[in-house]
Amino acid sequence: MKLVKPSAIRELLQFGENPEIISFAGGYPDPMLFPVENLREIVNRTLKNNGRSALQYTVSNGIPNLRAQIAQKMTGEGAPCTADEILILQGGQQGLDLVAKMLINPGDLIITEHPTFLGAMIAFNPCQPRYESVEMDASGMSVDHLEETLKRNGAPKFLYTTPDFHNPTGVTLTLVRRKRLVELANEFDFIIVEDSPYRDLRYEGTSVPPIKSFDTEGRVIYLGSFSKVLAPGLRIGWAAGSKKIIESLGLLKLAADTQTSTLNMFTVSTFLEEYDVNELLQEIRRTYRRKKDLMLETIRQTFPQEVECTDPHGGLFTWLTFERGFDAAKFMSETALPVAKVAYVPGAPFYPLEAEANHARLSYSLQSDELLTEGLTRLGKALKQGR
Amino acid sequence: MKLVKPSAIRELLQFGENPEIISFAGGYPDPMLFPVENLREIVNRTLKNNGRSALQYTVSNGIPNLRAQIAQKMTGEGAPCTADEILILQGGQQGLDLVAKMLINPGDLIITEHPTFLGAMIAFNPCQPRYESVEMDASGMSVDHLEETLKRNGAPKFLYTTPDFHNPTGVTLTLVRRKRLVELANEFDFIIVEDSPYRDLRYEGTSVPPIKSFDTEGRVIYLGSFSKVLAPGLRIGWAAGSKKIIESLGLLKLAADTQTSTLNMFTVSTFLEEYDVNELLQEIRRTYRRKKDLMLETIRQTFPQEVECTDPHGGLFTWLTFERGFDAAKFMSETALPVAKVAYVPGAPFYPLEAEANHARLSYSLQSDELLTEGLTRLGKALKQGR
Repeated sequence: MKLVKPSAIRELLQFGENPEIISFAGGYPDPMLFPVENLREIVNRTLKNNGRSALQYTVSNGIPNLRAQIAQKMTGEGAPCTADEILILQGGQQGLDLVAKMLINPGDLIITEHPTFLGAMIAFNPCQPRYESVEMDASGMSVDHLEETLKRNGAPKFLYTTPDFHNPTGVTLTLVRRKRLVELANEFDFIIVEDSPYRDLRYEGTSVPPIKSFDTEGRVIYLGSFSKVLAPGLRIGWAAGSKKIIESLGLLKLAADTQTSTLNMFTVSTFLEEYDVNELLQEIRRTYRRKKDLMLETIRQTFPQEVECTDPHGGLFTWLTFERGFDAAKFMSETALPVAKVAYVPGAPFYPLEAEANHARLSYSLQSDELLTEGLTRLGKALKQGR
Repeated sequence: MKLVKPSAIRELLQFGENPEIISFAGGYPDPMLFPVENLREIVNRTLKNNGRSALQYTVSNGIPNLRAQIAQKMTGEGAPCTADEILILQGGQQGLDLVAKMLINPGDLIITEHPTFLGAMIAFNPCQPRYESVEMDASGMSVDHLEETLKRNGAPKFLYTTPDFHNPTGVTLTLVRRKRLVELANEFDFIIVEDSPYRDLRYEGTSVPPIKSFDTEGRVIYLGSFSKVLAPGLRIGWAAGSKKIIESLGLLKLAADTQTSTLNMFTVSTFLEEYDVNELLQEIRRTYRRKKDLMLETIRQTFPQEVECTDPHGGLFTWLTFERGFDAAKFMSETALPVAKVAYVPGAPFYPLEAEANHARLSYSLQSDELLTEGLTRLGKALKQGR
């Protein structure tokens, strides 16, 4: 049997089960923001009027309506697409799995940000890639360091990036760097996997066009999701890419699970047709902005002064940097969990190479204002006592 | 980019789009049998009373209730399981994909029936296995031929079988052979993947216990599905196996798509709790038995005498054997589709090795009695004229 290692994410999910623990670990959206009543009405009506179709098999690449709606959305964001260039996925995560299957042979080079999304590495690792990672700052991945990395290592099979409200750091790749990234991809000849599940959750600053909008050579595979806009329990995401790439991913989708849930695709498509997503997003953005501000304020008030955190313009996460020598994983198992009863994700597992122990990812999306303040205050106290 | 070939199944799915064509090609259940109204009532109530949980992320191996219910069902069928030995899947097909990822390294040997389920090969092929296949007769896979194959080739990474109402042939593996199969697995040391999506659809004869019920060494991975009992559009299947195997598959599930739809898991679990599946199955079985009888009778009346077909005791398919030298794929593209306006699945793609061209798979599940008779009569006429 091939070796499959228990993952850090999976272990962390278990904290959710202890009601005493206030968890900032998961990337769960706030369920109070789900448009439950609208979705209920849509599902009820769909099953009443069109139930036999909504419960039957359908085409494996996803129902045409939904693909057309997503193509229109992508086009509106500056990345023109047709429905044939969209593949419906079982959440964005499935895109990472299918891309890995399509592109990675054992030993192939993948370039990621330093740090990068843990779930991406979990999807890529069964295909046994080699990693290089590129430094980040407050403007996202350093394109200069990327260029050096490319000159030293040659082109990767693909570069993986989460440019909007990066997971885990919360930072966003600037416009200038997006353009330079595409130039480098053209020059060195590699594919870019642009993973952007939080894109719609910008609550501050100006929107930056997707990397895909600068792509003139069909090199960018964009992964999107309705998990943070509508509801993750529906498991509806998508890939957008060239016809050739979407065709290949579609065959792998057929092999992987035949298709995404017909009923859930009908539901999301009907929601997009009948409701104003932007109205929903306004409420989502207002809420996450308030929670982010509250988190950063509470951190400033209760944490030791030397702890730094990023100030994201959207998404779900801030990234803590502790003093050198601080081990966030050790502190969590020895103090944060047993004493403060607070969970976060220690930073080390987010690094494909040269893990840095003195970081943690905190999510401000799930907890109520009260529990958010309470949990952070407890954590801050424990950190001060731990010094 | 790794080579991904368009699949025969995918091409066939496109026939469904031409309303003139009467298709016996797909494995679609009869949508008139879906418990639409019950499912509607359940989803509506779930979203009303428990919507925020039903739309949120949940544990990646599947909600505990549903796993416990499936464990109870498996136990009732003679294969005792606990909830920890069940993994919820995005349909049974996902089990094939995850098993392939867990077990197959390039060049590893897989043994299948001759012929075998096309969708299984589509899932296995990206992992680049080698195949050996074992002859079948009306009692299923020949265990004598299997033994010879094992002696000649050594143990495979796993043996893949669809023992109940085999896809594509419709035949069922006998009790004696199931026991012998497990003995051989123990002797030669290999895993058995028992794929049984049609198991509940027996309308004739006596039920045979799952192969897994004879497993004393944790070697059998059982794959089940609600697609043919409730509705395929919900995408709910499962794997049952030893804790160790289910743990490994669960990590691959997390990597592949995080989790199956929370809402759909809630829905199936509530259905199992509140409704009598056996009552539903009685109606399903009555319908498919009638359709199978009608198909076999119409074939006897309208097809050339030398065309043979299997007489399944359940499931969705019968398997045609034409005279030697007949090419079912050629006949379909040149005559059945353009002249008779009838689709089936030509047999050749179901063979991992030494494809036999003189077979076809017909499904009796989807079409109404009228269209079933009409389509087969047209096909029979075309076959007679084609001689």
